[in-house]
Amino acid sequence: MMTAEQQLLAAMIDHTLLKPEAVPAQIATLCDEAREYTFASVCVHPCNIYAAADRLRGSRVNVCTVIGFPLGANATETKVFEAELAVKQGAMEVDMVINIGALKAGDHLIVERDIAAVVNAAIKRGAITKVIIETALLTDDEKIAICKLVTKAGAEFIKTSTGFSTSGATVADVQLMKANIGKGVKIKASGGIRDLAFAQELIAAGAERLGTSSGVALVQAIVTGGMQATGQAAGGSY
Amino acid sequence: MMTAEQQLLAAMIDHTLLKPEAVPAQIATLCDEAREYTFASVCVHPCNIYAAADRLRGSRVNVCTVIGFPLGANATETKVFEAELAVKQGAMEVDMVINIGALKAGDHLIVERDIAAVVNAAIKRGAITKVIIETALLTDDEKIAICKLVTKAGAEFIKTSTGFSTSGATVADVQLMKANIGKGVKIKASGGIRDLAFAQELIAAGAERLGTSSGVALVQAIVTGGMQATGQAAGGSY
Repeated sequence: MMTAEQQLLAAMIDHTLLKPEAVPAQIATLCDEAREYTFASVCVHPCNIYAAADRLRGSRVNVCTVIGFPLGANATETKVFEAELAVKQGAMEVDMVINIGALKAGDHLIVERDIAAVVNAAIKRGAITKVIIETALLTDDEKIAICKLVTKAGAEFIKTSTGFSTSGATVADVQLMKANIGKGVKIKASGGIRDLAFAQELIAAGAERLGTSSGVALVQAIVTGGMQATGQAAGGSY
Repeated sequence: MMTAEQQLLAAMIDHTLLKPEAVPAQIATLCDEAREYTFASVCVHPCNIYAAADRLRGSRVNVCTVIGFPLGANATETKVFEAELAVKQGAMEVDMVINIGALKAGDHLIVERDIAAVVNAAIKRGAITKVIIETALLTDDEKIAICKLVTKAGAEFIKTSTGFSTSGATVADVQLMKANIGKGVKIKASGGIRDLAFAQELIAAGAERLGTSSGVALVQAIVTGGMQATGQAAGGSY
């Protein structure tokens, strides 16, 4: 049913529902959409992992969850506990929030150890970690510093935003991250990604995964003329 | 230095700093202010408990922290782990967020067990639990239902808001909670409490604790004419 272009975009999308008031029926719909479009994952809160894993059984869609979300100011031990439990319950991807205050205070060792502890807990059970740096709250110098720390900690992804702060992903931030992360680290852009042109700009800038609750609309937009609308930004970006 | 009226207000205030980007120096200042004014507690994130407990040693100020904050959509096991660790590290009060989606879905048993698990973990080590219901996201029927569940779960306090949702405490919500909680449960109002008149209205409505980052200004306002400015609302409210 989907074109090759649609499939390529869908495979980059973490189909996301993180409203705290979401009910089980909405999680089920999210999972069914993810299965239909073969999104990379559904991104849900830890309390919904069991239900999502169950609903997605037999599909190629991963369950992704969030750790220490959305403020990241938990104890490292709690982040590790939450990540281990999540992976045990069926999550294959964990998106953790860094200790933002420690980064701002220049306590880089605390920040790196916090990340590495979660990365190691996830890896043990074959799960990958995405490290949310919450760009909205950081200076460019802090963004550059955290790119190095995420790389050193061995995380698979660095991720722009929680979607719960003052702003979300920007092309400039993705470019800055691309220039400062190590070779093995990928970029997930998230927060405020609601139209195809913007999604394609983020991809062109280096994002390999998009966190969005608008995945269905984005994929459908490719057929309904979205590609034309985006002009050159779409050319060869994925 | 403080008048009796100031002391009474100060003893009701959880002096709060929950910005994820707060640095250790700001936590230290928060603690020093809490010691100076003898606030009920400082309310800080789990990653700051050690520092706050250390800074407040020898004072009458409690360390309060937040659990499953601010979305409450964690696994119950994680909330329990986070609460136990927090109390072990020096927190005497834990403010936990309920599972909002479960409440909205009518899964009352899940909601009650989630609360009770944290309450029991805290009680074991002599700490009290405040249950944040996030009024901004609830209908009046849901607010009434959660009042019963918080009462059944044996929590010491019910608390209006995280301060991270679409709105904070209202007088109407405090009144509604007062009418629907059991005798043993107290009310903490929080979120958007920045002037004395409003603080006094909340107290008059039944709040026995206020969560605010404006505690110093509120207490000082009593001397600088705040009492007059608030008119009748101030009369006999505490």
